[in-house]
Amino acid sequence: MARFESLSFDNPVFAAYAFYAALLVAKMVFVQFCIIAQRMARGVPGLPEDVSLVPTFKDPKPPVNENVERVRRALINDLENIPTFLIISLAYVLTRPTLSIAIWHFRLFTVGRVMHTVAYLLALQPYRSIGFTISLFVHVSVVGQIIIHAL
Amino acid sequence: MARFESLSFDNPVFAAYAFYAALLVAKMVFVQFCIIAQRMARGVPGLPEDVSLVPTFKDPKPPVNENVERVRRALINDLENIPTFLIISLAYVLTRPTLSIAIWHFRLFTVGRVMHTVAYLLALQPYRSIGFTISLFVHVSVVGQIIIHAL
Amino acid sequence: MARFESLSFDNPVFAAYAFYAALLVAKMVFVQFCIIAQRMARGVPGLPEDVSLVPTFKDPKPPVNENVERVRRALINDLENIPTFLIISLAYVLTRPTLSIAIWHFRLFTVGRVMHTVAYLLALQPYRSIGFTISLFVHVSVVGQIIIHAL
Repeated sequence: MARFESLSFDNPVFAAYAFYAALLVAKMVFVQFCIIAQRMARGVPGLPEDVSLVPTFKDPKPPVNENVERVRRALINDLENIPTFLIISLAYVLTRPTLSIAIWHFRLFTVGRVMHTVAYLLALQPYRSIGFTISLFVHVSVVGQIIIHAL
Repeated sequence: MARFESLSFDNPVFAAYAFYAALLVAKMVFVQFCIIAQRMARGVPGLPEDVSLVPTFKDPKPPVNENVERVRRALINDLENIPTFLIISLAYVLTRPTLSIAIWHFRLFTVGRVMHTVAYLLALQPYRSIGFTISLFVHVSVVGQIIIHAL
Repeated sequence: MARFESLSFDNPVFAAYAFYAALLVAKMVFVQFCIIAQRMARGVPGLPEDVSLVPTFKDPKPPVNENVERVRRALINDLENIPTFLIISLAYVLTRPTLSIAIWHFRLFTVGRVMHTVAYLLALQPYRSIGFTISLFVHVSVVGQIIIHAL
């Protein structure tokens, strides 16, 4: 059972963690690309000096654009949830959870966050709230299990 | 001394880390709940499409509400400090610090951040600045020890 | 080769990771100091109650100051990139990369982010975009290698 006790790819719980962590980070990088794409499409530079770089950036200080703000805020919501989940899940891996239960934690969290992002960008409710809530439940479950395990 | 050398719950430094990390993440999740509660209480939806979900959301685009903004910014300040502290502290655990000193690092950082959040939400100065500064000192201490250890 | 297989300072890949992680976190703490310094220099308190603490804070609710906003947004961009890179790089360390290649990953990411911050604060284009892009390439490389390794 030694392989279940450490942070290493020999531990299948950690291997699952690493896979879903990489998917979640890839998803966040994708949202960053969406922000850049929206800025270019709407002609909204992030900063005045960007006008010299992109032909569609004509006005150095355009009014706030709702399409750009929507993508930016989707990413802020990611920042409020994904990094702490990934950090705390490292400790969760070390609590020796059952492999299938651990995988379901990572899988559900990932599904919830992907659903949240898609619904955020497309303004789809109640799907955004459902995705957010699924991931939040998993997040709270992981935090609770670590507190119990550490006591 | 082998148990002091790895990331595992057999290492009491790591067990202390995991416990305080879970408390800090729980605190951040609590602030997220506060944001949702403030939005509902003040009738300020996060996005226009949320109007269909909550009865108190009448205006899809209300003016900026200072009570909501205060809680949002408390969380942003958490994001600027807690995830990096938790990540860098994993390396700190592996520098084989004295158990009691390590626990005091985690404890003081946590106390400082809790104090910061309470003082932020209740607009209490100088307590917000004191809490922020306590945590920042611990943060810098951990960063400095890792640089010294790695060189 | 055992020393290459774990998260510990005996593993030179992890030691390099910890060193660059500490530099990156120190850089982010420095940007936090820049925000405080800009607020004091421009007389722009973060919250109305701060007026009682700093002599240069006269107006409790001054208009948005572009110099302060610039530093704040530089830090938000750090938050969008550095914590996830540091988390995912822990898994990357465990994929047993070649030491020199791993060090170049950490080094290039760090150089890119430092270049991004300097160029952000001094409004220097295209250097901000170049720094951002260098780090993003490294970020995507690490994510891709973990997905391949985990499959």
